[in-house]
Amino acid sequence: MNKTMFAILTVLDKQSEIIGSKEISKQLKLHGVDLTERTVRYHLKIMDERGFSKVFGKEGRRITDKGREELAQSHVSEKVGFIISRIETLSYMTSFDMEKQEGDIIMNVSFIHEKDLKHTLKVIKPVYKSPYVMSDRLVIAREGEQIGDVIVPEGKAGIGTVCSVTINGIFLKSGIPLVSKFGGVLQTEESEPSRFTALISYEGSSLDPLAIFIRSNMTDVLGAVKHGTGRILASFREVPVVCVDEANMLAKKIAEIGIGGILLIGNPNQPLLEMPVGMDKTGIVIVGGLNPVAALEEAGISSESKAMSTLYEYSHLMSFKDTLKKHL
Amino acid sequence: MNKTMFAILTVLDKQSEIIGSKEISKQLKLHGVDLTERTVRYHLKIMDERGFSKVFGKEGRRITDKGREELAQSHVSEKVGFIISRIETLSYMTSFDMEKQEGDIIMNVSFIHEKDLKHTLKVIKPVYKSPYVMSDRLVIAREGEQIGDVIVPEGKAGIGTVCSVTINGIFLKSGIPLVSKFGGVLQTEESEPSRFTALISYEGSSLDPLAIFIRSNMTDVLGAVKHGTGRILASFREVPVVCVDEANMLAKKIAEIGIGGILLIGNPNQPLLEMPVGMDKTGIVIVGGLNPVAALEEAGISSESKAMSTLYEYSHLMSFKDTLKKHL
Repeated sequence: MNKTMFAILTVLDKQSEIIGSKEISKQLKLHGVDLTERTVRYHLKIMDERGFSKVFGKEGRRITDKGREELAQSHVSEKVGFIISRIETLSYMTSFDMEKQEGDIIMNVSFIHEKDLKHTLKVIKPVYKSPYVMSDRLVIAREGEQIGDVIVPEGKAGIGTVCSVTINGIFLKSGIPLVSKFGGVLQTEESEPSRFTALISYEGSSLDPLAIFIRSNMTDVLGAVKHGTGRILASFREVPVVCVDEANMLAKKIAEIGIGGILLIGNPNQPLLEMPVGMDKTGIVIVGGLNPVAALEEAGISSESKAMSTLYEYSHLMSFKDTLKKHL
Repeated sequence: MNKTMFAILTVLDKQSEIIGSKEISKQLKLHGVDLTERTVRYHLKIMDERGFSKVFGKEGRRITDKGREELAQSHVSEKVGFIISRIETLSYMTSFDMEKQEGDIIMNVSFIHEKDLKHTLKVIKPVYKSPYVMSDRLVIAREGEQIGDVIVPEGKAGIGTVCSVTINGIFLKSGIPLVSKFGGVLQTEESEPSRFTALISYEGSSLDPLAIFIRSNMTDVLGAVKHGTGRILASFREVPVVCVDEANMLAKKIAEIGIGGILLIGNPNQPLLEMPVGMDKTGIVIVGGLNPVAALEEAGISSESKAMSTLYEYSHLMSFKDTLKKHL
C-alpha cells in the first residue's frame, strides 16, 4: 500500500460516520497531504477493490476490518515515532475543564468476550479500590455501542479506562509541559513503589510499551492490590524544574476531583526510583491506565486493548460502584 | 541493593568457577570500580546473609539463584542502555577466524524441560532448513553441562543458537562498523521478506526486543518456513555507505562457510523495507538468532531464553543433522 492510500485509510479509520471524498480531501490537508477530490476518488476505488474500504450511499466510504488490519501492519517505520507523537497530539486535544468537571479526556479501549463481562467486573474490583488506577470512573459498552469513536464489535463488550496521557493534557492546558519518557513495569513492596523492573522508551517503539508488557505476562497487578507486593504498569515522565511547585499543586487538585494516578513526584535534578532525569528536570511516576486490563490477563480473561484510543466526555463516565450495580 | 553490591554480583554472575575477593577486586577495576579486597569481603558478607551469594571453601564465593534473580530486577534504569552496550561489548569479544573456522562466536542460550527435547528437535527441524536461521549449527546441553559460561539447570536441556550479533563481531574484525538499530517482527510473503510489523529500538529498551516479541506471541515462524507466509524475528542494522562493497563481499564469504542470516543489504541512502536510513548509511536486515525458539513457543513448548548470553567456540558446534542423529 502506498503512502497516499495509507493517508486516506488513516482518515477513514478515525471516522465513525460515512465520509465522502470531499471531506476526506479536506481532512488530508490538515495532515499536510494535498490531494484533489478526484485523486481521492481514484485511490478509494482501488482501495474498494482490495477490500480496505466499502461504498455506502452515493459516494460515502467506510473502512473495513481488512482495512484496519492493513493499517495496523503498514508503514511501521513511521510508527516508531508514532507512540510519542500520538501522546503529543492527544495531549493537545484534551479539553477537560477542572472547575466544571467536563470536557474531553483520553481513554484506552479494551474488548473482552461479552460472556466474560461479569467475571471481568469481579476481577477488576480490587484494582479500582487501589491507588493503581487513573480514576474510579470508567465506561462499559455493549456490542454495537460506541466508546468515543470506537465501535464495540459483535459478541464483545468494551471497557473504557481513563488513559494516563489525560494528565499530560491537563498539565499542558495549565502551561506545564509533561514529557513521557519510558513505559515500564514497576515493582511494589509493602504497597509502596520500589523500582522499575523493565523499561521501553516511548520514542523508540512502534507499539505501546504497556500493551507489550501485558501481552508478555510481565505484570502482577493482582498481587500488588491484594498483598502489596507485585508488579504494576507505570510510566516515567519529566517536567522542567521550574514547574515543580505548580505540578505538585495541580496533582493534588486533580486527585481531589477523582483523577489520580500520580504516584511520585521527585526532587529537582534527583534520580527517582533509581531513574536518572535530564538536566533541570524532575521525574514523575504515573500509573498505567491499563492496570485493570493487566489484571484481566493475569486472571486468564483474554482481552484486546488499544491504548490512547479515543477522546471521551468525562461527565459521561460512571463510577465503578454504579457500574457494578448496572452490570452485575 | 546498592551499586557496590550490584557491581560485585555482576562479577560473580559471569564466573562459572568459585572466585575469591582478590580476584573480584581485580575484575571490578576492569569495570572502573575501585574497591579493596577488604571492602569486597565486607560486602560479600552482607550478600551472603541476604542469600545472594554463598561461601565455598575458605573464601570463595558463588552467586545463588536468588542473587541472579536480584540482578535481573535491579538497576534497570542502567539497563536501558544495557542492550546496546552489550551488543558493542560482545562484538568486540568475538574472535572468529574465517580461514580456520574457529574462535569465539556469540550464542543465545534457551532452556526447555528435558522431557520436551525430542519434540523440540522435530519442531525446529523446518526452521533449520530455512534461510531464517543464523547457521545450521547449534549446541544441545543436558542438565549440569555448560554452554560457554552458562550452566544448564536441573531438569532442563539447553539449546545454544548462534546469535546474530556474531555478524557485528565478524564485521568489526574486518573494520566495518555494523550498528544494530531496531529489533523487529518481519512479515514474509511468498518466502520473501515484505515489511516490518513491529519495531523496538535497541537504544531505548532494558530488555532484548526479540525476546519480548517471542513472549508476546507476535511471531509466526512456522508459517514462514512451512508456507512462505508468516512473521519472523529480524533486526535492522546500518553500515556507513563507504563499506557497502566490502559488506556485500563479506556477507557472501561467511554464507559460504555456513554463517547466514543476512537477508537484505540495501542501497546507499535508500530506505530498505520502508525503513529510512541515517545520512550516508546503508540498511541491512538480519534474521534473529532466536527464530528456532520462537517456533517452539508457537508450538506450545515453553522455553526461557537469554539472548546474547555467552561466547562459544565455533568449532564445537554441531550441524543440525548430526544433532538429530545424536539426540533423536
